[in-house]
Amino acid sequence: MNKETYELMENYMRSCMGDSAHDQEHIYRVLYNALDIARTEEKVDYDILIAACLLHDIGRKEQFENPDLCHAKVGGDKAYCFLTEHGFASDYAEQVKQCIRTHRYRRDTQPQSLEARILFDADKLDVAGAIGIARTLIYKGAVSEPLYSVSPDKEVLTGENDTAPSFFQEYKYKLEKLYSDFYTNRAAEIAGERQQSAIDFYNALYHEACTPYQNGRKELEKRLE
Amino acid sequence: MNKETYELMENYMRSCMGDSAHDQEHIYRVLYNALDIARTEEKVDYDILIAACLLHDIGRKEQFENPDLCHAKVGGDKAYCFLTEHGFASDYAEQVKQCIRTHRYRRDTQPQSLEARILFDADKLDVAGAIGIARTLIYKGAVSEPLYSVSPDKEVLTGENDTAPSFFQEYKYKLEKLYSDFYTNRAAEIAGERQQSAIDFYNALYHEACTPYQNGRKELEKRLE
Repeated sequence: MNKETYELMENYMRSCMGDSAHDQEHIYRVLYNALDIARTEEKVDYDILIAACLLHDIGRKEQFENPDLCHAKVGGDKAYCFLTEHGFASDYAEQVKQCIRTHRYRRDTQPQSLEARILFDADKLDVAGAIGIARTLIYKGAVSEPLYSVSPDKEVLTGENDTAPSFFQEYKYKLEKLYSDFYTNRAAEIAGERQQSAIDFYNALYHEACTPYQNGRKELEKRLE
Repeated sequence: MNKETYELMENYMRSCMGDSAHDQEHIYRVLYNALDIARTEEKVDYDILIAACLLHDIGRKEQFENPDLCHAKVGGDKAYCFLTEHGFASDYAEQVKQCIRTHRYRRDTQPQSLEARILFDADKLDVAGAIGIARTLIYKGAVSEPLYSVSPDKEVLTGENDTAPSFFQEYKYKLEKLYSDFYTNRAAEIAGERQQSAIDFYNALYHEACTPYQNGRKELEKRLE
């Protein structure tokens, strides 16, 4: 890819970015992760891969404003329009669009091409480990969701089998399970190196959240007449 | 304290709560932490302590909407009005107000009474360890601040000596340093038990954030003509 094309796409990406869990630094981490993964794969089309990485979250703002929209679908369509409007071939724009449409964790449409799989893995790496924990917490703050839910008898819920949205629920539903879900060996290797940090953090957080309730509720009862 | 008084204050607190880093579960953790600390102190006035804990963040919404306001000052004044309007003695309301005014981390006014010091410590415990990390990240999301800043030559900054607001900056400026700042032995002991989780998480996060930039920027240069 030439530098001018890269900067054209980079500037468009910057104009589209929204909340701080999906800001431009997320895009650069995904791009850099993808290039790291690509080194261990053969016959990667870098023109497709770099464009798909830069543009993969340009539909986020639309989904943030209307949660019924899917940012992967919106983003794929926006990327196709942007590329064809700027003189790129429709076949190339279509391949970039397909990568973007299938990068999302929900698996109704699976990534088909090598570049789509690398983007999928590179994006998932940014939800693995400590950085996945940090970005999820930032996102929960942006959408005003709590750290955890509390049962009617005031026990802190673990998030397992919990239906109300919270960080613990997202951890159990998505973050804890993603480590076996990579297409490429390199991504699985990086994720594996990060996994223990995430487990340790969740366990420490759960312990720190529970303990005050367990000890404090009994103390409160003693102090209320 | 009788149950009716507790519920009166609890309901008022619930009507005042705002962002998910300072929601009602934060209030319960602080109250329970305070009761745990109080067990190891002598001559605690529980009527003052419980009221001060329940009402300590009722000025948050005002500060969130106007960052020039100090939630400790606004909250102290609101608590005084609420208590005197509900028939509590002005001397009692004044003591609760003083606890609330001095609970904040910034030390222009220091907590004087035993109950003010217990509230201060109990609130600081909720910024220690994994829970302090999690609440700070949620707050950064709510106010749209990023995880870290990047230098002009695209190095991830550690947060040390960093002036732009970010999670790393807050960690270095506040979270990393709070462990030596407690008034009571019990709070210092609990914070000490939590400290390593916070250090481990920051170190893992910094490593995960830096590595893609270090490896990926070189790869990107190779792929751009």
